[in-house]
Amino acid sequence: MNDPPAPHDASAHPSFKVTPWEVKGKIDYERLREQFGTSPLDGPILARLEKMLGSPLHPLLAREVYISHRDLPQALDSYERGNPFFLYTGRGPSGEIHLAHLIPFEICAYLQRKLGVNLWIQVTDDEKFLFSGAGGRTELSLAETYRLGRENLLDLLSVGFDPKRTHILFDTISIHSLYPLALEVAKRVTFSTAKAVFGFKNDNNIGSIFFTAIQSVPAFLPSARAKRPIPCLIPCGVDQDPHFRITRDVAEALGYPKPALLHNRMLPGLLGDEKMSSSADRRDNAIFLSDSPKDVQRKISHAFTGGRSTVEEQRRLGANPDICSVHALWKTRFAPEPKEFEEITRTCRSGELLCGECKGRLVPRVEAFLAQQREQRAEVEKWIDSAIERDAPTGSTPS
Amino acid sequence: MNDPPAPHDASAHPSFKVTPWEVKGKIDYERLREQFGTSPLDGPILARLEKMLGSPLHPLLAREVYISHRDLPQALDSYERGNPFFLYTGRGPSGEIHLAHLIPFEICAYLQRKLGVNLWIQVTDDEKFLFSGAGGRTELSLAETYRLGRENLLDLLSVGFDPKRTHILFDTISIHSLYPLALEVAKRVTFSTAKAVFGFKNDNNIGSIFFTAIQSVPAFLPSARAKRPIPCLIPCGVDQDPHFRITRDVAEALGYPKPALLHNRMLPGLLGDEKMSSSADRRDNAIFLSDSPKDVQRKISHAFTGGRSTVEEQRRLGANPDICSVHALWKTRFAPEPKEFEEITRTCRSGELLCGECKGRLVPRVEAFLAQQREQRAEVEKWIDSAIERDAPTGSTPS
Repeated sequence: MNDPPAPHDASAHPSFKVTPWEVKGKIDYERLREQFGTSPLDGPILARLEKMLGSPLHPLLAREVYISHRDLPQALDSYERGNPFFLYTGRGPSGEIHLAHLIPFEICAYLQRKLGVNLWIQVTDDEKFLFSGAGGRTELSLAETYRLGRENLLDLLSVGFDPKRTHILFDTISIHSLYPLALEVAKRVTFSTAKAVFGFKNDNNIGSIFFTAIQSVPAFLPSARAKRPIPCLIPCGVDQDPHFRITRDVAEALGYPKPALLHNRMLPGLLGDEKMSSSADRRDNAIFLSDSPKDVQRKISHAFTGGRSTVEEQRRLGANPDICSVHALWKTRFAPEPKEFEEITRTCRSGELLCGECKGRLVPRVEAFLAQQREQRAEVEKWIDSAIERDAPTGSTPS
Repeated sequence: MNDPPAPHDASAHPSFKVTPWEVKGKIDYERLREQFGTSPLDGPILARLEKMLGSPLHPLLAREVYISHRDLPQALDSYERGNPFFLYTGRGPSGEIHLAHLIPFEICAYLQRKLGVNLWIQVTDDEKFLFSGAGGRTELSLAETYRLGRENLLDLLSVGFDPKRTHILFDTISIHSLYPLALEVAKRVTFSTAKAVFGFKNDNNIGSIFFTAIQSVPAFLPSARAKRPIPCLIPCGVDQDPHFRITRDVAEALGYPKPALLHNRMLPGLLGDEKMSSSADRRDNAIFLSDSPKDVQRKISHAFTGGRSTVEEQRRLGANPDICSVHALWKTRFAPEPKEFEEITRTCRSGELLCGECKGRLVPRVEAFLAQQREQRAEVEKWIDSAIERDAPTGSTPS
């Protein structure tokens, strides 16, 4: 009963903890990369991406929001050889969508647009139900996670996808498609492994222990259907990496390519939290897609910055954009032009740009973005239901 | 990590072990009943059954093949109050069907015929896949367990059911119907509980740990659909009791009636094994529905009996039907008339009936039964596929 911690045990590091269900402490991304054993998304691979995708690269790639990867070169090689990878990302529905949730979807939309690749999105309403209520999380019924799943999708798809190349696996709706492959995965994952990777304990429910098998399936399903290996690239928060280590571990035994991964760091919360999250008592930590202009103004005006305690001091010493939640918003989405972003960063550091002015400049951008998302939502309503894979009516057999 | 064994821990008894996947040692049914905490199927309840079902009772009930129950009186009360229970039994497909597999199906067919109740049958191809290969069991692919599931069903349904009152949940085909309720069950079962009930270890795969949630679902599904409590009665081998203790434990929290249970003892193997089972190296231990007349003759002529080593001794001391695998066949199926069965038992004990003669009398009965089953199979082919619940085509949502 006493397994040694696996080399990639997410709980082994003393000062922070990163699992799909919990981010604790201040993340040292360099150490996390070493601990997880991933590759840095640095110069050579970024240069290659720039050649494929055009210059300048998307801000999320160019500005170190995406920080590490697994086997990305292999996925690009395959694309260049004429066997394009497909993208896979997902959403565990809970509460409302905020800006941090959009990050993997924005990079997927960008890669889909630039490379014409397919995207598979998994909505894990089962996961959110199974893990709700534990570890201080709000209890959610399955009917509620189901409802939230569709709601969340409308927001997430509003970042702009090609309906013809976008497939949605919604766990409780698409389970007939998912289950046979989930069984194949589950058969090859022991409780020991799941415990080492996720830190499960004896009081975890048996559904939460099984769940990772369901999350593996979209990485394999297109290959299983095509009866040929189609590479998969998974853009996701680095906190989701443990799931996909399991996916990668079983891939070969199942005869499918190991999925490649592309990890983004956590977007900081407006209250200075390590991760923009949406707990009920800290709603001002995140900007939700449903926020009113008044909400946006209030949240940004109170946001944690890298500024100094007095104007005089800031003019003299400059501010620190690296720890600033407002600067993180400019970086990830609201200053897409490199020139403007560099100017904001430079004048922040030099003390020319004060926090109040910076915030005042950001507020209308955020408001405009949210308004545009809401408009897009109505468009997504038109095609979302036809993109969700529904269980087959008759005679389906496991592969 | 050191849970005390649960009061119903199937592995706690030193001299025998009974789990859904393993029967070891000589079972002391009285002690097993005490250990599991079940009620004996004795005089008063048998008298009540006789009043409801007519006299004489089915041999499986009258001759102590069904030995214990949980909450049977409550199910009968409900029937008499005008809210009939439904029956639920199942089959984990593997290899071929032999006579022991028929026992729960025969009692279900009898109860369905006498009481006009519905029957739900679950085919657990997922389970058999997940548990195959471990503990010395043959490795089976999911495609194979799926194929075996349909094959097995044809044999099992040949004992005679009313197609209009028979519903089949075939796990990989019906998973869309099963999954939401399985999640509800799984959320309420910790790894601790599953470990205590089934004896799971760290090297069990995560699918096998989750599986019991799937086996609980048919006990609740009719109530969930009708949106009112419909009692459930589960006839099954006593080795399946651990699963349904979990089902019963979560029933109340989910708002469904606890299913009642009716347990049969294991049918002994022809080679003297405690349980008629179908391992490849001991095929003569069981009579398969596919056996030829030659197979039947050979197996019965070599069968383990309660006879003496010489004719002289047997004439003088009599034989022991209680340990005899041939007598078990008479008891369970091949001497339905009480008068004949009593005569066989009496003359066996007295030494009048010798084993050779007894076997010679049994062989044509078994051959005729197998021939009749094969004829029935062709009838079942006509309706089996319409009885299998197939996943809904559109818009299904979890309840």
